[in-house]
Amino acid sequence: MFPTQKVKSLVGKFIQVEMKGEQNILVGKLESVDDYMNLLLSETSEYRDGEKIRTLGSVVLRGNNIILIQPFKE
Amino acid sequence: MFPTQKVKSLVGKFIQVEMKGEQNILVGKLESVDDYMNLLLSETSEYRDGEKIRTLGSVVLRGNNIILIQPFKE
Amino acid sequence: MFPTQKVKSLVGKFIQVEMKGEQNILVGKLESVDDYMNLLLSETSEYRDGEKIRTLGSVVLRGNNIILIQPFKE
Amino acid sequence: MFPTQKVKSLVGKFIQVEMKGEQNILVGKLESVDDYMNLLLSETSEYRDGEKIRTLGSVVLRGNNIILIQPFKE
Amino acid sequence: MFPTQKVKSLVGKFIQVEMKGEQNILVGKLESVDDYMNLLLSETSEYRDGEKIRTLGSVVLRGNNIILIQPFKE
Amino acid sequence: MFPTQKVKSLVGKFIQVEMKGEQNILVGKLESVDDYMNLLLSETSEYRDGEKIRTLGSVVLRGNNIILIQPFKE
Repeated sequence: MFPTQKVKSLVGKFIQVEMKGEQNILVGKLESVDDYMNLLLSETSEYRDGEKIRTLGSVVLRGNNIILIQPFKE
Repeated sequence: MFPTQKVKSLVGKFIQVEMKGEQNILVGKLESVDDYMNLLLSETSEYRDGEKIRTLGSVVLRGNNIILIQPFKE
Repeated sequence: MFPTQKVKSLVGKFIQVEMKGEQNILVGKLESVDDYMNLLLSETSEYRDGEKIRTLGSVVLRGNNIILIQPFKE
Repeated sequence: MFPTQKVKSLVGKFIQVEMKGEQNILVGKLESVDDYMNLLLSETSEYRDGEKIRTLGSVVLRGNNIILIQPFKE
Repeated sequence: MFPTQKVKSLVGKFIQVEMKGEQNILVGKLESVDDYMNLLLSETSEYRDGEKIRTLGSVVLRGNNIILIQPFKE
Repeated sequence: MFPTQKVKSLVGKFIQVEMKGEQNILVGKLESVDDYMNLLLSETSEYRDGEKIRTLGSVVLRGNNIILIQPFKE
């Protein structure tokens, strides 16, 4: 399975994302992903040191500024 | 809905944008977006910690330096 | 009007540009712009906190490192 | 052997990766790589100063934010 | 004249370049430039606060990490 | 000679590379380079202030995060 296929396989599930220029981790339900790894998340929250610090709702993340994506484990 | 379609669906509405290399959040009315997620905003303001600190008016934001886009909730 | 068209409409006028990796704002007369948003400015100056701190003359700015472009308001 | 072929030759082996915006080194088993050098790793861990500090499991790393890839030597 | 044409017009002349991730300014004779604004410089030196601090000789600079190019004025 | 040709001409020789997000300089024997300036180096070492601080062996460097490449002068 290629990296982008792996990301597509996570649609409908909660993922966590590290962004360049974001100290906190974003956790949200993956609604869609395109070939540039741009992401649409819903029910997004910001986490710092394992604690939820902010609720963001629906967000679009720019693919080229993503560092790391992984399934969310609470 | 794909991430870029989500952004296009926000044309005419106020959005908030986090840019790489900008500590503050930009809030403006989305006038247009292209396939690279370059954005044209009008009535743009800069916010820090939830407070408006500067009025910018009409701005163009370079897509590849966008971190996060979301609908603006006052 | 798309974002790049907006930038093209500013040719011949003074604009201000925030670059990644530049703390100061660049102000110059926009001579040309290409599809990557690379910019050629003339009569360029560097501004910090609203004050002109350096004169640069003719400069080329790399499009992918641009954060924000706006018309210059003195 | 070209750089991307070198990376492909490491599929099935443990590699270590330095990412932009990550102080720690990521070590994982390379499951797949695409033409953009996006990586899918399994059994991933984070290392700081040679010590494992966190277990991440399965992660996708965005190719354009990779600095350096090398075979893992314990 | 488009931005890349401007850069090409400087071949054979000394230019100064600001790079992302480089605090110092690079000054060198522009030997060649390609469509990505990758640059080949000869007789390159590093300048800090207007003083030459290091001689580098022949260097290749990666276009997408260039912030600003201008003709060198001693 | 174009910038990428210059880099190709260095295959088989030792080069030094400055990477974005790496404080140290990497020195290694250039094994191969592709059109994106991704590099495969062997016998790589990390240098800080002119002193070798670490031996890395075989590494792949991502082209878009390269700042500067030059022939290595011991």
